[in-house]
Amino acid sequence: MAALSLISEHRCFEGEQRFYAHESRECATEMRFSVYLPPQARMRPVPVLYYLAGLTCTEETFMTKAGAQRLAAELGLMLVAPDTSPRKNRIPGDDAAWDFGLGAGFYVDATQDPWSRHYRMYSYVTRELPEIAKSLGGLADRQGIFGHSMGGHGALVCALRNPAQYRSVSAFAPIAAPSRCPWGEKAFTGYLGPDRTHWMAHDASALAAARRYENPILIDQGTEDGFLAEQLKPQEFETACRRSGTPLELRFQKGYDHGYYFISTFMADHLRHHARYLGA
Amino acid sequence: MAALSLISEHRCFEGEQRFYAHESRECATEMRFSVYLPPQARMRPVPVLYYLAGLTCTEETFMTKAGAQRLAAELGLMLVAPDTSPRKNRIPGDDAAWDFGLGAGFYVDATQDPWSRHYRMYSYVTRELPEIAKSLGGLADRQGIFGHSMGGHGALVCALRNPAQYRSVSAFAPIAAPSRCPWGEKAFTGYLGPDRTHWMAHDASALAAARRYENPILIDQGTEDGFLAEQLKPQEFETACRRSGTPLELRFQKGYDHGYYFISTFMADHLRHHARYLGA
Repeated sequence: MAALSLISEHRCFEGEQRFYAHESRECATEMRFSVYLPPQARMRPVPVLYYLAGLTCTEETFMTKAGAQRLAAELGLMLVAPDTSPRKNRIPGDDAAWDFGLGAGFYVDATQDPWSRHYRMYSYVTRELPEIAKSLGGLADRQGIFGHSMGGHGALVCALRNPAQYRSVSAFAPIAAPSRCPWGEKAFTGYLGPDRTHWMAHDASALAAARRYENPILIDQGTEDGFLAEQLKPQEFETACRRSGTPLELRFQKGYDHGYYFISTFMADHLRHHARYLGA
Repeated sequence: MAALSLISEHRCFEGEQRFYAHESRECATEMRFSVYLPPQARMRPVPVLYYLAGLTCTEETFMTKAGAQRLAAELGLMLVAPDTSPRKNRIPGDDAAWDFGLGAGFYVDATQDPWSRHYRMYSYVTRELPEIAKSLGGLADRQGIFGHSMGGHGALVCALRNPAQYRSVSAFAPIAAPSRCPWGEKAFTGYLGPDRTHWMAHDASALAAARRYENPILIDQGTEDGFLAEQLKPQEFETACRRSGTPLELRFQKGYDHGYYFISTFMADHLRHHARYLGA
């Protein structure tokens, strides 16, 4: 594992909020991530909870806006949040749209040129970040994952494909059936190519229908979320879970929209959900 | 009172997070502010707590980063956070420095050209915002104020000069003796002119020495705050409070810096402090 470069460190709820850069093996370029080390991490290894952010976000968004550190400090959870794409090695056209390229890696391993060299967010999240988390005092056998929107899609896919690695998963307003919405179709076409059979390994609803995930999945979805009907489609995921017998708690939260005021409101519920299955 | 223009509204902890623009009477230009209405505000008038932000911040900073809404919803406190300066009518040189002009109004009524026409943040905060808060369901006889850095200075000055209006006051890392630090000397010279006798009405330490403030003042200050020795000087404020018999709880928080990871850590203590004196 290459060396981590500490960008900044801030005391927060008696723990440490840190921002790192490092040369990523999987992405073959610099990646950035943030980590919150709860005070318990000074004494012993702690469970790890990964958060995957949505379109346009960075490794900072969750740590500044979600208000998760208070309860993570109480529960003794390490929080790890990667950036949403590589950014250092620029690719022509990577900033042409806000929903593809920079800030929009979609947590897949791209197979299409010119994206396939650096846009390997799936392997970065599921293989490289866990090694880093372990080196920072995380327990390899107690990992959970959650995320928002594009990151909710990413979290569901990571957990459903790696149920032994991720004991718990939850999501805020996830893109729950990306093969069947404009955001997902655009991203998957660009990163994975036009053959839709290759998309299924990155579609949470396809994965949930095919295999049962043991621990209950928690999803919160605001009813006033402007992306709900066209892009998010949590009902498709609900149908898929029913098919495989995957336990799902899908909660429609009345009046809430797609942003971090919604996320922060239900953050405590999600952290407690993960703590239950991570033994925190 | 001129009409308020709603920029955005977000459900948050069962209350409403709103952002407004309006033509300000005191600043003679557009001003922006944010307000958090706790769920209790739908049923009855509620106490109001104003937050004044620091250099470079806007009306958004506190609401996105401080994590205050959770407990404000529980306690039934309305939160109001103004921008840190006028921004619509630009003045030559107003963006030449980050510590003067735009985002750096210092909560004074400027007397010097060309600032005196629009930079009237003291009157905006103490006179105009309370009228607005009342129109949104705030209780005029239960108002408190707090802030950070430049806004900590502003909060202390507003409360010490208007003890009947503000029942409670607290601050995070305030510029506690602005007449005797580089930030304050630069701002007061520019806004109030070189005659230091005119500065005293905007210097928290001078005000605290001259008159007793009845309810205890709470100040949190990080020991790893890089601005502590040169710019903030809380000990000067402590000496001033001792002189007038003003009750002060000045807490040095070990390892914390000047940012919002520090502020969010102690936010609950400050909200409970205000709730105690505002009868929330």
